Amino acid sequence: MTAGRFDEGFRASLHDLLVWRRDVRRFRRDALPEGTLERLVALACLAPSVGLSQPWRFLSVESKAPREAVRANFERSNAEALRAQKRDKTDDKAAAYARLKLAGLDEAPCQFAVFADRATSQGHGLGRLTMPETIDYSAVMAVHTLWLAARAEGIGLGWVSILDPAEVASALEAPPDWVFIGYFCMGYPAEADSVPLLEREGWETRRPPASVFFKR
Amino acid sequence: MTAGRFDEGFRASLHDLLVWRRDVRRFRRDALPEGTLERLVALACLAPSVGLSQPWRFLSVESKAPREAVRANFERSNAEALRAQKRDKTDDKAAAYARLKLAGLDEAPCQFAVFADRATSQGHGLGRLTMPETIDYSAVMAVHTLWLAARAEGIGLGWVSILDPAEVASALEAPPDWVFIGYFCMGYPAEADSVPLLEREGWETRRPPASVFFKR
Repeated sequence: MTAGRFDEGFRASLHDLLVWRRDVRRFRRDALPEGTLERLVALACLAPSVGLSQPWRFLSVESKAPREAVRANFERSNAEALRAQKRDKTDDKAAAYARLKLAGLDEAPCQFAVFADRATSQGHGLGRLTMPETIDYSAVMAVHTLWLAARAEGIGLGWVSILDPAEVASALEAPPDWVFIGYFCMGYPAEADSVPLLEREGWETRRPPASVFFKR
Repeated sequence: MTAGRFDEGFRASLHDLLVWRRDVRRFRRDALPEGTLERLVALACLAPSVGLSQPWRFLSVESKAPREAVRANFERSNAEALRAQKRDKTDDKAAAYARLKLAGLDEAPCQFAVFADRATSQGHGLGRLTMPETIDYSAVMAVHTLWLAARAEGIGLGWVSILDPAEVASALEAPPDWVFIGYFCMGYPAEADSVPLLEREGWETRRPPASVFFKR
């Protein structure tokens, strides 16, 4: 294969990767090989970024205290979300889903937070004056890059978003200009599936692509 | 290849894809095959989304009037950005960069806007109470998915962010709950390169991954 040219076989496998990527909730407890996160972060740095600002910041959470702070934060935020939601019939499902997320926080051998540095001088501000949130979007694309690269190695990722961002930033001693993007659990998945867990569990179904496509 | 399992050859090609993906500014004017955008949007719908909300909305911009409105919006926003920036020596570079973006808006045969529907009931609000911006992040990951899938077909994408989001939303008659994510130019690239244009042109250089990696 010539560099920068991709064949039909690769495109079929890429499709397969998109289909089999999952938001993983159950992990095996065995550790990832030494240096896995660093290696995946290096791939994530190939993601697009506004003005070549590369504003993503990866914070590997390895100590007990910050991990426990995040877990407690999740439990509080989730209790609040369940109270706010209070929808007939879905309460049990939401609670069950939360338990799965907690399981991820307890079992995943590798955990990290991602932030976007809104104050970075890299990129000299290009492209972000009218939309400063493109800094955050760049960090999100780095996460997604890492996610796909991990899945291609048989490693699963789970995104935890039921958190109070300010509290996470404080617990992880993030600089004030860093926007919290998400907290991630990573490890070998306990199972593989091509259908999202939320769909398998009857929480929600995916809609046909035509329903999100419009013309002007 | 077994479904959901990926080999070393695929991982090497995926790395290649990440390396050769570019934010494209110069396009050939020939049209993409009929149905290309619809097909790529279907792949984008495989992206992760908070609570399986699939909040991405793709708006193909085909008529002359909205295209001209976006172009005028870019010119105004860019003039403002150049005034605000006013940095020694970089002024000329920023202006040159803006000209490239304008070229994209003039030449790209396919153009579309992406929005995130913050009001969608899909997903039943799961996972987004403390961080409603995860709806926007989901749409960003759909864009990134489309970007990679397009590049695997030799199709280039350019993200235009120097725009007034409210004006774009109005020009494209987007519903009030839709958050504007970005405007995109798509077509066959006039050139292929593994180095970002901003780096080739001396605007900015990429930093080593170790500089964005921290431990707690």
